[in-house]
Amino acid sequence: MAVGLKAPSSLLAIKGIRLAATNAGIYGNPRNDLVLMEFGQHSQVSCVFTQNLFCAAPVIVAKNNINHKPCYCLINAGNANAGTGKQGLRDVKDCCLELSRLVSCDNNQILPFSTGVIGEPLPADKIISSIPTLLSELDENNWSDAARAIMTTDTIPKAISKKIIIGGKDVTITGMAKGSGMIQPNMATMLAFVTTDVKIDKKLLDQLLVDLVGNSFNRITVDGDTSTNDACLLVASAESQCEIKSLDDNDGLSFYKALEDVFYFLAQSIVRDGEGATKFVTVEVHEGYSEADCKKVAYCIAHSPLVKTALFASDPNWGRILAAVGRSGAKIDINLLEIFLNDVCIVQNGGLAENYSESDGLKVMRGDEINISVNLHQGDYSTWVWTSDLSYDYVKINAEYRT
Amino acid sequence: MAVGLKAPSSLLAIKGIRLAATNAGIYGNPRNDLVLMEFGQHSQVSCVFTQNLFCAAPVIVAKNNINHKPCYCLINAGNANAGTGKQGLRDVKDCCLELSRLVSCDNNQILPFSTGVIGEPLPADKIISSIPTLLSELDENNWSDAARAIMTTDTIPKAISKKIIIGGKDVTITGMAKGSGMIQPNMATMLAFVTTDVKIDKKLLDQLLVDLVGNSFNRITVDGDTSTNDACLLVASAESQCEIKSLDDNDGLSFYKALEDVFYFLAQSIVRDGEGATKFVTVEVHEGYSEADCKKVAYCIAHSPLVKTALFASDPNWGRILAAVGRSGAKIDINLLEIFLNDVCIVQNGGLAENYSESDGLKVMRGDEINISVNLHQGDYSTWVWTSDLSYDYVKINAEYRT
Repeated sequence: MAVGLKAPSSLLAIKGIRLAATNAGIYGNPRNDLVLMEFGQHSQVSCVFTQNLFCAAPVIVAKNNINHKPCYCLINAGNANAGTGKQGLRDVKDCCLELSRLVSCDNNQILPFSTGVIGEPLPADKIISSIPTLLSELDENNWSDAARAIMTTDTIPKAISKKIIIGGKDVTITGMAKGSGMIQPNMATMLAFVTTDVKIDKKLLDQLLVDLVGNSFNRITVDGDTSTNDACLLVASAESQCEIKSLDDNDGLSFYKALEDVFYFLAQSIVRDGEGATKFVTVEVHEGYSEADCKKVAYCIAHSPLVKTALFASDPNWGRILAAVGRSGAKIDINLLEIFLNDVCIVQNGGLAENYSESDGLKVMRGDEINISVNLHQGDYSTWVWTSDLSYDYVKINAEYRT
Repeated sequence: MAVGLKAPSSLLAIKGIRLAATNAGIYGNPRNDLVLMEFGQHSQVSCVFTQNLFCAAPVIVAKNNINHKPCYCLINAGNANAGTGKQGLRDVKDCCLELSRLVSCDNNQILPFSTGVIGEPLPADKIISSIPTLLSELDENNWSDAARAIMTTDTIPKAISKKIIIGGKDVTITGMAKGSGMIQPNMATMLAFVTTDVKIDKKLLDQLLVDLVGNSFNRITVDGDTSTNDACLLVASAESQCEIKSLDDNDGLSFYKALEDVFYFLAQSIVRDGEGATKFVTVEVHEGYSEADCKKVAYCIAHSPLVKTALFASDPNWGRILAAVGRSGAKIDINLLEIFLNDVCIVQNGGLAENYSESDGLKVMRGDEINISVNLHQGDYSTWVWTSDLSYDYVKINAEYRT
């Protein structure tokens, strides 16, 4: 029941990037749960990772390996390999070692990623025995299978392709992401893998990734819980004729814009498919005294269980939004504050807006895409976050997750 | 379905404190929704209020009146009179004015309190026309009726009495509280009214109230939402023979202990009757680097929707607790950290404790009173909070609140 989101129809191959997905049997039921992605020899690879201190074993390994010119990433669903201590590290390293042995690369050129239940031992044997199959099936056209294989509680695969012309040359971008619960990424996100065929140097790619993640995956929250396994990977295979030499010239700006569209789409997709989500909500905060103040207000609204249940009920209970703003700790003058639901002004002059009518509020709340906009009238800063509502299904999904 | 909580059986009168409850018709259905409390002429009155910037109209008035030797408080359920702007202020002042006229006191000697739906106009006329009835029914023995009349989404009245002997003299304490959702008090709480018959000066009473609230109502969270209407009132009627002259001598310590029991009971009662609560959970954090660090960890666990849904499901999903600790921002060394569910060690040496078995964890989680204890081994600070789980009924109650 993802909000306004359909499964991707056609995903474009990225020259220099091959993928394969298979069923390693990590889940009890028959479904693909293991993905191998190969980066061509000219590829540049950037990655950002979760800031959760309890990062999972694969995150520890991938963080170490990211600067060793990675050639493969190995992604499993169904098991996060987090909170698994030394055995977890041994398990993920065993998987990397076996893959590196079969492809004759250094074992620190593999980036491992895991997503799924925390705290259960990784079935390394199942993964290891599936690697030959994955290697034999590597193909540039396997994006759809891969996007589906990395899903956990996701109800729909999340992926997108974009083809643009930059400086007269074709550029293609294809990315996929997974994530639905335990979503409040911090400098990174759930798992996202974005690839393109441009040529770009590593430093520029790193900068690009940090900028883009800051405005996309770092703007989303489903439940305020930052995962132990978040990671966002950006790969440029250098197989097209297009070279990006700066982010400030025309080519750089065009490329940035196209990539931003992909990041926005994938980040929003995670919220649209948030666990139990029935609404996609943008919370905007304008004219704050500081960036930090804007964030406080935005996240206070986005995390309030009372606001989220009112959204679920399509109830324009603006008092709950007001209460959330009021407890945020931001600099606020009640008499200056304005709050809008889409274009309906609900709060003005320290109370209910004079022209507000419940039926206007109800009309907005009945939609499945809602904009909550707060104007603090305190300064020049603004921010936004994307979030979802809190429904019975959120509780159901998370109460039954391991049973 | 309050966790381990029964309706109070017998509540003791406090000499010098009279109460009455009536049905002013604020709710559509027949139930008492308006309470008047009269403080005898020798009473000292302390009160702390919500820190939410959007405090309700009655809070603005009560904050102003608290230092004018209050003689009455007027409490209504069913309407918070919050976010109601200037009209809300006029409404509450009209109620105070009418009461002061009838009893011939100054209108700033009235403390008004409201609780209920935010953002709807206070039916001041209904309240005003009920004041004569309340005045005619004032009695020291009306605590049960009053405790029931201040309820909103509470499923059970929350009140307690305590009789002790201090320095050979009888001392009685009776208190009541209401609150179930929008609960993360900040220097105050939902509505709580605690009274006693000791003689004590105002300054000492103020200090006592701040100390007690810090360790009771400020330690609870149901959903992290700080109300616009929180207030906690402490009244000493000076009608017993006992005078408290210091909090450091034997009499003071005995009195503090007895009062603390009452505050603990009422604060815990709010969590036990938290909206949809099926578990009462104490989160302890020990040996933190600072008080702030301990709080970060405790509230991160207590507010995590994933931890709360796991509690609801009786699922010892310790990975979610670990992830919440890891994202808290506190100073943590993963290898030193220990986490216990009651006496079962679940996390040690950076991962699952060696001797942990799922059946041990399950046994703890199946209980309805659970202790989650985190030892950071970083310093000398510790803290605790009381919280509840997140169930279908929380969503149901809050999705249907205004419908």
